[in-house]
Amino acid sequence: MILAKVKGNIVATQKDSHLVGHKLLLVQPVDLKGEFLPSSEIVAIDLTGAGTGETVLITQEGDAVQQILGHNKAPVNTIIVGIVDSVDVVG
Amino acid sequence: MILAKVKGNIVATQKDSHLVGHKLLLVQPVDLKGEFLPSSEIVAIDLTGAGTGETVLITQEGDAVQQILGHNKAPVNTIIVGIVDSVDVVG
Amino acid sequence: MILAKVKGNIVATQKDSHLVGHKLLLVQPVDLKGEFLPSSEIVAIDLTGAGTGETVLITQEGDAVQQILGHNKAPVNTIIVGIVDSVDVVG
Amino acid sequence: MILAKVKGNIVATQKDSHLVGHKLLLVQPVDLKGEFLPSSEIVAIDLTGAGTGETVLITQEGDAVQQILGHNKAPVNTIIVGIVDSVDVVG
Amino acid sequence: MILAKVKGNIVATQKDSHLVGHKLLLVQPVDLKGEFLPSSEIVAIDLTGAGTGETVLITQEGDAVQQILGHNKAPVNTIIVGIVDSVDVVG
Repeated sequence: MILAKVKGNIVATQKDSHLVGHKLLLVQPVDLKGEFLPSSEIVAIDLTGAGTGETVLITQEGDAVQQILGHNKAPVNTIIVGIVDSVDVVG
Repeated sequence: MILAKVKGNIVATQKDSHLVGHKLLLVQPVDLKGEFLPSSEIVAIDLTGAGTGETVLITQEGDAVQQILGHNKAPVNTIIVGIVDSVDVVG
Repeated sequence: MILAKVKGNIVATQKDSHLVGHKLLLVQPVDLKGEFLPSSEIVAIDLTGAGTGETVLITQEGDAVQQILGHNKAPVNTIIVGIVDSVDVVG
Repeated sequence: MILAKVKGNIVATQKDSHLVGHKLLLVQPVDLKGEFLPSSEIVAIDLTGAGTGETVLITQEGDAVQQILGHNKAPVNTIIVGIVDSVDVVG
Repeated sequence: MILAKVKGNIVATQKDSHLVGHKLLLVQPVDLKGEFLPSSEIVAIDLTGAGTGETVLITQEGDAVQQILGHNKAPVNTIIVGIVDSVDVVG
């Protein structure tokens, strides 16, 4: 899992049926201070109710995501699985 | 999932039988403005009827793709799962 | 698997139910001398009781992790699977 | 899937039993003009009868490959699934 | 699969039970001449009896590895599957 921040939404009317009904958020990886890393944006399904500006945990595997969504046919490989309250770095 | 733009088609007569009958599109990752990122092109199976120049959502996992195609033996790991209407970035 | 060092903890109250009860550690890949590589931090579930400052082995696949956790629905793809005692480089 | 060009062969007498009987080819990713990208070489199992110098489609997932090979225990994650006849870029 | 050279061993007393009894080798990707690439070291389970200094084939998927090890719960995603005798590059 990596840290990312929600930047906005994606609208895609024409899409695979398994994506219908799920919120697609635009996220970008961030460092520990919440600064955006020089990475491309990623499109993720949100399972946590995350909103724009929030720091989230995203995972990018395929199988797990499909199973959470209640079926095993969703062509989804990025998902928001947690909203980060704090990051505690020791030392 | 990431954003990409369709650039053209791939013709491959001699291919694994599971790829027969599927349209193979050439796509390249893009940023939020639709500009191509300095990434290599990717070959993807299209499930959405996407055409050249359209911005699409692609996913790159293996298992999900195979299941959508109705069997579990397709050696495919990139698929177009949505055509992007708009990207809304907040702030 | 790669070598990483534990840097701290992640607190995420609002998270997918499968993550509840698991310790989320912040780790960063290191070289053989234990120096941090110029990589982003990664958030991992800990199965070994690793503490801050320890060098650990992390794996990043999806299926394996879910099975270890006793179910197959956890959206987790990074896990700490060993605490490194020593690295012996020959020659 | 990505585009790659076949550069040669790999000989490995001592190998996992699941690799026995399969041709191992050395491939390197190429751009649309067939020029090698600044990427490392990859070792792939060939399912298409591809020869040195040919441009091929390779996929790198694990599960699919195993299933094609008729069993589900092959530790193989790169496979040649098509020989590219032409790449048509529009615009 | 990629080419790598064995550099040494990893000792990890405290580890997930599925790793117990398996030799953990430190490997680093190499080019066709056997020179180390500017990549980080990787920790791999050895199935071939490879020794320090040998060039090996490694694979990094999850599922395949678990199945070879005779169970499907090993959190392992890197494995040595062949010892390279020779690399024949044409042209």
